[in-house]
Amino acid sequence: MSVAADRIRFETEPSKYRHWRLDVDGPVATLTMAVDPSGGLRDDYELKLNSYDLAVDIELHDALQRVRFEYPRVKAVVITGGLDKVFCAGANIQMLATSSHAHKVGFCKFTNETRNGIEEMSTRGGQFVLAAVNGTAAGGGYELALACDEILLVDDRSSSVSLPEVPLLAVLPGTGGLTRVVDKRHVRRDLADVFATKAEGVKGRQALEWGLVDAIAPPSTFDELVADRAKARAAGSDRPDEAEGMRLGPLEHRFVRVDVDGDVGVATITVLAFSSLIESLEACRELDDAILDLRFNEPVAGTWVLRTEGDAERIVVADEAMGGDGWLQREVRLFWGRTLKRLDQSSRTLVALITPDSCFTGTLAELALAADRTLLLDDGETSMRLTEVNDGRYPMANGLSRLATRFWGRDDDLARARSVLRKHLAGADALEAGLVTAAPDDLDWDDDVRLLLEERASFSPDALTGLEANLRFPGPETMETKIFARLAAWQNWIFQRPNAVGPEGALPRYGTGSRPTFDRRRVG
Amino acid sequence: MSVAADRIRFETEPSKYRHWRLDVDGPVATLTMAVDPSGGLRDDYELKLNSYDLAVDIELHDALQRVRFEYPRVKAVVITGGLDKVFCAGANIQMLATSSHAHKVGFCKFTNETRNGIEEMSTRGGQFVLAAVNGTAAGGGYELALACDEILLVDDRSSSVSLPEVPLLAVLPGTGGLTRVVDKRHVRRDLADVFATKAEGVKGRQALEWGLVDAIAPPSTFDELVADRAKARAAGSDRPDEAEGMRLGPLEHRFVRVDVDGDVGVATITVLAFSSLIESLEACRELDDAILDLRFNEPVAGTWVLRTEGDAERIVVADEAMGGDGWLQREVRLFWGRTLKRLDQSSRTLVALITPDSCFTGTLAELALAADRTLLLDDGETSMRLTEVNDGRYPMANGLSRLATRFWGRDDDLARARSVLRKHLAGADALEAGLVTAAPDDLDWDDDVRLLLEERASFSPDALTGLEANLRFPGPETMETKIFARLAAWQNWIFQRPNAVGPEGALPRYGTGSRPTFDRRRVG
Repeated sequence: MSVAADRIRFETEPSKYRHWRLDVDGPVATLTMAVDPSGGLRDDYELKLNSYDLAVDIELHDALQRVRFEYPRVKAVVITGGLDKVFCAGANIQMLATSSHAHKVGFCKFTNETRNGIEEMSTRGGQFVLAAVNGTAAGGGYELALACDEILLVDDRSSSVSLPEVPLLAVLPGTGGLTRVVDKRHVRRDLADVFATKAEGVKGRQALEWGLVDAIAPPSTFDELVADRAKARAAGSDRPDEAEGMRLGPLEHRFVRVDVDGDVGVATITVLAFSSLIESLEACRELDDAILDLRFNEPVAGTWVLRTEGDAERIVVADEAMGGDGWLQREVRLFWGRTLKRLDQSSRTLVALITPDSCFTGTLAELALAADRTLLLDDGETSMRLTEVNDGRYPMANGLSRLATRFWGRDDDLARARSVLRKHLAGADALEAGLVTAAPDDLDWDDDVRLLLEERASFSPDALTGLEANLRFPGPETMETKIFARLAAWQNWIFQRPNAVGPEGALPRYGTGSRPTFDRRRVG
Repeated sequence: MSVAADRIRFETEPSKYRHWRLDVDGPVATLTMAVDPSGGLRDDYELKLNSYDLAVDIELHDALQRVRFEYPRVKAVVITGGLDKVFCAGANIQMLATSSHAHKVGFCKFTNETRNGIEEMSTRGGQFVLAAVNGTAAGGGYELALACDEILLVDDRSSSVSLPEVPLLAVLPGTGGLTRVVDKRHVRRDLADVFATKAEGVKGRQALEWGLVDAIAPPSTFDELVADRAKARAAGSDRPDEAEGMRLGPLEHRFVRVDVDGDVGVATITVLAFSSLIESLEACRELDDAILDLRFNEPVAGTWVLRTEGDAERIVVADEAMGGDGWLQREVRLFWGRTLKRLDQSSRTLVALITPDSCFTGTLAELALAADRTLLLDDGETSMRLTEVNDGRYPMANGLSRLATRFWGRDDDLARARSVLRKHLAGADALEAGLVTAAPDDLDWDDDVRLLLEERASFSPDALTGLEANLRFPGPETMETKIFARLAAWQNWIFQRPNAVGPEGALPRYGTGSRPTFDRRRVG
């Protein structure tokens, strides 16, 4: 039976899991994947051999959040397979073959975001993630392992790691695989080419020699290897030995309000002021959920209007409470960072509207800085206010703050913006500081906003997506931006090619017994 | 009358130009664009208002090469429009609307390469390029200006710069426009968003304030401004005051041989040994022409086998002759650099085969380092040899040598490869140094090569293109890699979207009087 539902829901909790098991043993947590074949999002495919769809990945995302917040004493996380001889077979192929282009793209993006979050746990969260590859890891299965800090492979003469997408499916290993193989694991590019065209993959010692895995062990000592490595990594963690976790209860929708107006293609996201660490965490959870809900369930709302409401002093207090060295403070900051990056990566026009009741300060000023356009009502009173929080607490995927990205290559303008931190900036001052796109007065405001939203709705959504994906990320590139731009953009192209998705293409033909027919001409 | 031809030819010379005029006056050259509306590559569109197609850009590419080689004393180049009120209207829309997906992609790639070459003239070639925008510059017209070192705009109340692709055509300004606006000219991202959605563009003082142009002047003093700026830039050039140019005669096809076997989808490119500066230039011209010819005219040849033939000592002599500070030596080196980058950017599998008659040394060893797979015959004699040339003379688009890219993140391996410069490396030694993918012996060679080529031909060409575009460029990203990956990959995606190219899409509907009908759903 499938979890059929018109609307895809991202909120879940462990008692509802069908695919993952979370076991915590002192400083080590183990996430075991044992996918229920009939537990997919739709019922026209079966999730055999630990293959996954969005439903499986929603659980993984939830489980990782809980490890971070509910289990502060966990210092190492082991991800492993719960089926015989299989670690994970990657994204389900029948699902890919029967999903819309938009679903494939959205699914890959969410999966990538979750993988990036795994990497962040190891690099910034003090919870090192290890892949205990106790069976075959194919495609997205190996890509999941690639996101971990260490890959341990059982050396049993049958278990391999592989990226069989190109030879078997005519698509890319698009969840970071190609990028991480050469840019993270530094596999030599010609060997990476051999590897990614070798459907059966690479096993044991050769996988180790090529740099595809970090350690191997025979079945008899594999569990010991995993336990030893987890213990060793845990020893390097700065997570506390004693601390109470923060239970993530059901969302209460106290801080984020969403209104969708399909006719004009607009969703308005209003974030209400919060004033404590706990409220900030709740607001962030609600915002994250709202972004995912709108991405998947409201594709016609091509513009997201970002609003805030309440007393800006409350945000200042909350931002203060989020500072400091505590594990929870750090996790809340990192979570805001991920959620804001999710906003940056959303294929929607972002318009921030700053009005008299707004509180665009500190953490919430990031919404204005993330926007493609920011309008501030010039009524002499309405203002925004940057704080130190905007000068580095929430780096974008490119490694820079949104403020530094905004003034990329214009150091004087950046210095000027930094000189007005903590100042209330109304109309002309906000314009002068380069922080808003326009500051219409009362007479013009309604028309200007309406015209902007109407104009945006009149453009091709695809062209806007390409435009925004290029203008939002000036400056340096990182492995993360490479994955979202270079790799994902190529995958999106391939996801439209007849050789992959046409009637004679590789995806629909997979498993039918008949080979795909390819147009052999190269493009470009 | 069109220049109709089954095969697109890239070789041309000034007496055949229909669209560009090259005037040289002391240290300043002027390239004037006055497109012949009926001089396009096909005759089903007219190149009105200085719009361009590949035929126009082939002439520009040729003219720039001649400025570099035939006019060594030129220190500044002015690109301007030769029509009334028009600088350049960008790529011809009817051409785009009626071209195949593959032609659009190939055309944009070549255009991008030419624009990158313009930038290289200013940054490395001592010939500063200025855009004298003496009329409207729209879309690709403004993108041509963006590739120049300075943009001078006439302030006549009508001439504007614009990127109207998104609002009018539902595609991107994909020839570097979006990238250069934010990453080169550092236009603030929200202003860039306004600019790139404003079909009518921006004029005069506002263009200057937003950073879209470098200087403005009314018509009465515009020519003076251009002359002054050209003179000022020329003063900073290290080009010689006195020197004879190197005439670029018709290609003689003495150094590059191409054999196409459509049945197995393979083109074999054989470069013969050259032994002087002049021969090296000729070989490079022939290789560049061969790459372009194969890209556009032999799309079924999805694999390019790279071979070399002759005495490797000749290459060593030529490489020595290419060294040094002379303008010509530098230009020949830069030209090889561009040609090798063109190889990197070609959507073809590159296989280098090193056999007894090969001369993979120095400049020609770059072909082996550029390849996705390199096979060396292990017969005890066949060898390759790196030299200092391979350690930095020819940076890739990512700014690194191909050698450093190969060992990205593996400093020990890079140091080991550097330690064998100038050594003849046969079978096991080449393998040990990590310079070849495999070294089959006589018994296995034929089968191994055949199987590799057959396997490659059995894969989806599109998936291979995506694979190669991701594995070839580990390490840092630059504006150039951003243009070819992020921007071009998104554009290629959009070039397949119904909103752009479907029967009701913006490209076919443009100029018909009926508005396009868009599917308003966002993807991702």
